[in-house]
Amino acid sequence: MLKFNVIVIGGGPAGVSAALSARNTYPDKTIAIVRKEEIPMIPCGIPYLFHSLANVDDNILPDKPLIKHQIEVIIDEVVDVQEKTLRFISGKEIEFEKLVLAVGSSAFVPQIKGIEKEGVCFVKKERDYLITLKKSAHDATKIIIIGGGFIGLEVADELLKAEKNVVVIETLDHLLPLAMDVEFGKEIEENLREQGAEVYTATTVVEICGDKKVEGVKIASGEMIEGDLVIVAAGYRPNLTIAQKMGLRYNPRFGIIVDEYLRTSEKDIFAIGDCAAKRSSFTGEYYKLMLASTAMAEGRLVGSNLYQMRVIRKYLGALGSFSTKICGVSYGVSGLTEIEAQKMGVDYVLGTAETFDRHPGKLPGASKLFVKLIFSKYSHVLMGGEVKGGDSVGEIVNMLATMIQNNMTDMEIDTLQIGTHPLLTPSPVAYPIINATAEAILKMV
Amino acid sequence: MLKFNVIVIGGGPAGVSAALSARNTYPDKTIAIVRKEEIPMIPCGIPYLFHSLANVDDNILPDKPLIKHQIEVIIDEVVDVQEKTLRFISGKEIEFEKLVLAVGSSAFVPQIKGIEKEGVCFVKKERDYLITLKKSAHDATKIIIIGGGFIGLEVADELLKAEKNVVVIETLDHLLPLAMDVEFGKEIEENLREQGAEVYTATTVVEICGDKKVEGVKIASGEMIEGDLVIVAAGYRPNLTIAQKMGLRYNPRFGIIVDEYLRTSEKDIFAIGDCAAKRSSFTGEYYKLMLASTAMAEGRLVGSNLYQMRVIRKYLGALGSFSTKICGVSYGVSGLTEIEAQKMGVDYVLGTAETFDRHPGKLPGASKLFVKLIFSKYSHVLMGGEVKGGDSVGEIVNMLATMIQNNMTDMEIDTLQIGTHPLLTPSPVAYPIINATAEAILKMV
Repeated sequence: MLKFNVIVIGGGPAGVSAALSARNTYPDKTIAIVRKEEIPMIPCGIPYLFHSLANVDDNILPDKPLIKHQIEVIIDEVVDVQEKTLRFISGKEIEFEKLVLAVGSSAFVPQIKGIEKEGVCFVKKERDYLITLKKSAHDATKIIIIGGGFIGLEVADELLKAEKNVVVIETLDHLLPLAMDVEFGKEIEENLREQGAEVYTATTVVEICGDKKVEGVKIASGEMIEGDLVIVAAGYRPNLTIAQKMGLRYNPRFGIIVDEYLRTSEKDIFAIGDCAAKRSSFTGEYYKLMLASTAMAEGRLVGSNLYQMRVIRKYLGALGSFSTKICGVSYGVSGLTEIEAQKMGVDYVLGTAETFDRHPGKLPGASKLFVKLIFSKYSHVLMGGEVKGGDSVGEIVNMLATMIQNNMTDMEIDTLQIGTHPLLTPSPVAYPIINATAEAILKMV
Repeated sequence: MLKFNVIVIGGGPAGVSAALSARNTYPDKTIAIVRKEEIPMIPCGIPYLFHSLANVDDNILPDKPLIKHQIEVIIDEVVDVQEKTLRFISGKEIEFEKLVLAVGSSAFVPQIKGIEKEGVCFVKKERDYLITLKKSAHDATKIIIIGGGFIGLEVADELLKAEKNVVVIETLDHLLPLAMDVEFGKEIEENLREQGAEVYTATTVVEICGDKKVEGVKIASGEMIEGDLVIVAAGYRPNLTIAQKMGLRYNPRFGIIVDEYLRTSEKDIFAIGDCAAKRSSFTGEYYKLMLASTAMAEGRLVGSNLYQMRVIRKYLGALGSFSTKICGVSYGVSGLTEIEAQKMGVDYVLGTAETFDRHPGKLPGASKLFVKLIFSKYSHVLMGGEVKGGDSVGEIVNMLATMIQNNMTDMEIDTLQIGTHPLLTPSPVAYPIINATAEAILKMV
C-alpha cells in the first residue's frame, strides 16, 4: 500500500503552509497534499474575480512551491479512515504516520424560503462554480447581496466597479458587524450609497421571490426588492465530515477541537485553518475566526511540530487581524474592537488620532489615516486597534498585531522608535499609532 | 523678565514633539518654542520641493498644533545663556526652568576647491534659500549632485521627473552606502541610469570648475563633468554653538552628549534630535543617525520626563529605521544591515524572501516585495531587516522596528499571527517577513 510520512488533507492556505513548513523542518519525510480541486483558488482573491481580475484563472493558488519542495499533490477525495489508512473515492488507499486536517469551510446556506431557486448563488471556493458565477454576474442587471460582512462588501464593491446595480442587505445594525465598530460600518454604508448601491441594514430577507428563477427578495417589512441575481454571503461553516468519521472531538459551530499546538483528540492528527476551532487569545473562549492568515500561522506551527515539539509559541490562542478595501478606502483591525471589549467586560481606554498617510499632506496620493486603539486601563496593554486610510492600512494592521502579541504597554508604544518618509508614511510628529497612544495615556490617570 | 517653565530651542520635528509631549504631560506649565525661522520647513519633505510639490510653501511644518496646545512660538535667535536666562539677538531676555535643545544640524560643506562658486548649492532647511534653489534647478540644464545618500538620491529622482539632466557622484563604492547593503545600492544605480541619469560611484570630486559661475566638476581621475548647477548633499553636522556657549559636554562629530533620557551634562537641560549624539542600541557606541523619526521619539520622551521620570523606555539607545522611494521603487531598513553586522562582529544568519505585495500577483498595481533579515545566530533575535518593494515598505519597516525593539526571536516571528488582504498585502502563504525567518531558521542549526 502507498504510504506517506505526512498527509495533509486540503489544499488551501492552511494545508499549503503546513506542507511547506513540514518540508522545511523534516527534510527526510515523505509528504503529500490531498485535495478535491484539480485547480485550487486563492480564497481571499475570490471577490476580485468579479472585476479586478480578468479571468478566474488569474486567481489560482499555484502548485509550483509544492512541487519545488517535493510535496506530492494528490487530487482525490477521502471517503473513509481506518486507523492510519485513508480510503479515497478513487478506491485508492494510502497510509500515513501524521495526518493534518485542513479541510476548510463551506458557504453557509441560510434557511430562507426559495433559496434553492435558480439565480441564487454562493461565494464558493470552486473554480468551475466561480466561472459560472462570474458569467451570471456579468449578465445580470441588478444583483442582490445577502450579507454585509467582508466577502459581501468586497463583492458589492467589485460589482459597482463593473457598473452593476447592487443591493446589499445585512441582518445586523451595521455593515461589517462582526469585524468593526459601528462608525466604520456606517461610513462604508454611506460610501457604498454614494457609488450607487442600495444598502439595507437591520434587515432580514424572509423569502427569495420568483417563479422558478429569482426575481427579487422579500424583506421582513414585507417590502419586495427586485433583482435578477442573488449572491448569498452569509458566512462559512467548518467542514466536519471527516472529523465525524474519525470520531474526533468537535464543536458543530466552531469546528474540530484542538489544543494550543493544533493537536486533535487523536495524538497523530492535527487540525488547522477554518475547520479547526479557535480560542480567543484574550479569554481562551471559543470564537469564530476564519482567516487565511490565521490558517497560515497554524499551518506553519503544525508543520514544524509534527514529530517533535520544536517551535514554541510566544502567544497562545488566536488573534484576528484583517484588512479590506471598499469604495477606495482601506479598513483594518487587529485584536479587539470596542464592541468586543465591551462584550468581554474589559475596562478599557480609547485613544484615537487622524492624520495623512504621507507628509506633507499635499503630496500627490495622500489619504487620511485614522487609528483607534483600545488599551486595558489597569494593565496598560494594547488589546486592539482599528485603522482606516490608504493602502498602507494592511501593514499598519500587522504592526498593531506585532504590538499586541508582544503585550506592549502604552509607555512602550509611546517610546517606540519608528521610521517615516514623506512618500510612504505619516509625519513623525503625527504618527497616528503613537499619537493615539498618547491620547489614551492621558485618560489612564 | 519674561519667564517660561519650559523653553524648547528649535522648531523642527524634535522640538515640536518635545513641546507637544510636555504639554500633554504637564498641562499647567508654560511652554515656549524658540526658533529662527519665521516659516519652518518639514525637513524630510524638502527633496520633494523640486518636483512633486508645486510650491515651497506646500512643505510648511504647521504651527497650528502648537497654537492649539497653548505653546508660545517665539521667532528669535539665542545669542547667549547665563545660568537660567537666555539672551536673544533681539535684545530680549527670557528665563526658563527646563531647557530643551533641539537645534538640529546644518548641511556639511566638504573641502572641495571652488565650492564657494556661484551655482554651488546645499540642501539647507531654510525656506527662502529653498525658493531660490527651486528656481535655480528649474532654470538649470544639467545638474550635478554630489552625494549618493538619501537626500542626494531623492533630489536626483525628483529632478529626473522634472526632465532635467542629472549626474550623481558618490565617493563610496555604492549608492546609499551608509544606509543599505551593496545589492540595493547597485540596483538603484541601474534604475537611475535607466531614467537617464549619469551615476558615478567610488568617485571623488576634487574641484568645482568654472570662471566665477559653475561650469562643471573635476573628479579624481582628472575627468571633467559638465553641469551648470551643483547640489551638494554630503550629509549634515550637528549644530553645537549653543552647547559650546553653555559649556555642555559634546562630541564634535556626533553631537551633544546625553544619557538614555536625553539629559545633558546639566541636569535641567536636555538635547534631542540631530544636535544630540546617538548611541547604537546594539552596542552602546556613538554613531551617526539623523532622522526626524528618531528626533520625534526623543522629543516625546523628553517632553514627558522634564520634571519627573515618568515614561520609562523599554528599549535603550537609538534604533535607526528609514525608508525612501527612488525611481518608483521603495526601499527601507530597520536596525542592522549586513555590512553593519559584519563591521560590528555579529555572528549572523541571513534569511531572504521575495513575493508580490498583493495577491494574486496579477492584481493591478502589484509590485515585487523583497525582504532580507539578519538574525543573531546564537541569540536568535532579529537584529535588522532591509525591504524593497511598493509603497507598503514604509510601514513594513515599522513592523520590523517593532519586532527588533521587542527582541523577537526567530521562533516568535515564525509563530506570529498577521493579517493579509489581496489588495493590501502579500499572500499569507508567502508573507515575506515570515518566509525569510523560516529560511534563517534552517541555517541556525
